[in-house]
Amino acid sequence: MNKYKLIISYDGTNYFGWQIQKNKITIQEIIQKVLKKILQENITIYASGRTDTKVHALGQVAHFTSKKNINLKKFLFSLNSLLPKDIRVLKISEVDSNFHARFSAKGKIYRYHLSISDIQDPFSRLYSYNTVDKLDLRLLKKASLYFLGRHDFSSFANKQYQGSALTSPIKTIKRIDIIEKKDEIILEFEADGFLYKMVRNLVGTLLACASEKMPIESIEKILKAKDRKLSAAPASAHALFLVKVLY
Amino acid sequence: MNKYKLIISYDGTNYFGWQIQKNKITIQEIIQKVLKKILQENITIYASGRTDTKVHALGQVAHFTSKKNINLKKFLFSLNSLLPKDIRVLKISEVDSNFHARFSAKGKIYRYHLSISDIQDPFSRLYSYNTVDKLDLRLLKKASLYFLGRHDFSSFANKQYQGSALTSPIKTIKRIDIIEKKDEIILEFEADGFLYKMVRNLVGTLLACASEKMPIESIEKILKAKDRKLSAAPASAHALFLVKVLY
Repeated sequence: MNKYKLIISYDGTNYFGWQIQKNKITIQEIIQKVLKKILQENITIYASGRTDTKVHALGQVAHFTSKKNINLKKFLFSLNSLLPKDIRVLKISEVDSNFHARFSAKGKIYRYHLSISDIQDPFSRLYSYNTVDKLDLRLLKKASLYFLGRHDFSSFANKQYQGSALTSPIKTIKRIDIIEKKDEIILEFEADGFLYKMVRNLVGTLLACASEKMPIESIEKILKAKDRKLSAAPASAHALFLVKVLY
Repeated sequence: MNKYKLIISYDGTNYFGWQIQKNKITIQEIIQKVLKKILQENITIYASGRTDTKVHALGQVAHFTSKKNINLKKFLFSLNSLLPKDIRVLKISEVDSNFHARFSAKGKIYRYHLSISDIQDPFSRLYSYNTVDKLDLRLLKKASLYFLGRHDFSSFANKQYQGSALTSPIKTIKRIDIIEKKDEIILEFEADGFLYKMVRNLVGTLLACASEKMPIESIEKILKAKDRKLSAAPASAHALFLVKVLY
């Protein structure tokens, strides 16, 4: 058996996220169908992690195994010819049999796009969250510092994975970069891992702080409480990008 | 009666162009319905010109008249609240009764986006044309020079307006800027006016020249012949943006 690694970019707008579900169109299903068509085998692909409905990826990573010896260049061309244009495989490579897209990952980078203009550019509507609230950038930066480093992020993880044996709620956020552009603020998160809906929950609380709906000092208490009910509502999914998976 | 000028940006992906048509969803119809709803009058809006199915606008200009005295700031907010997110009114102002969005226009700027990467970024698929042909940028620039200045562009106008009394086929192209980015080439055209489908026809012929399917010298002959059949097929509509209308 040969093992192959794919780097995939997708516009999540028209999909119910990565993971296969009954009666819902997902990215995993679309790619598996194309792989089956080309390789004439039943293929299961394993991603670095699921992405939710409407979440985008610039560099999702997935692997699969096949009996076939694949000509990588030709295969990449065939894949992209058969895939819809909102899903592109950017790269394919053969990997060691030990490689696992999810379990070998050492970290991830996510980006969250905020549109801060009074009238949102129609071309960013599917990729950026237009905040109606006035944001205080100084507060946003201050609040982000509370999340840096090693914490139990249970208060920022949705139920699905809470207390799951698979994932520890203790994660280390290495950096939160706040990038200011003309009509946009981009929040870039790098961590050794993220819990279910964690980035969106972090952004929700950061926005609550930056719009003075929540005092920044309360972040410490929320982290300590390990209770999802205390943090703010998650920020909208359509503005979230999985940028890179680190190995 | 009061006259108002709107500057409008839209993502043309989901529309059959600007102009109202039976049984087809168009930008003009959507905006008129919203204006009627707010103003409780039947309103007709006049744009600087139609844009085709899937063509986008960063700064389309339109005007309408109303019996009402409009509070501009409130009205702009109401308009954008009721319009779909892929159509935004960026600005509204009161104008002199002589102003006409189409007949007062002194010029227009259009942009055409070419994606030149082997694998097109999924996020640009609706806004940029992915050329499969290798383009020679030197040839592209040379070819563009043939179009500069005052010419009879009948060979680059589609039938609908050919020989129409409304528009002279003689236009002056003031500049064609070729902007090179990482995975993209942008062609920006400024002229005193454009004939029906003229930009897409110009781009089609420029691409034919840059991919060595057509010798650049033939552009002179095509212009002289005043025969649409001689120029190349029009470039795809989805990569065209109306940038600005000049008054």
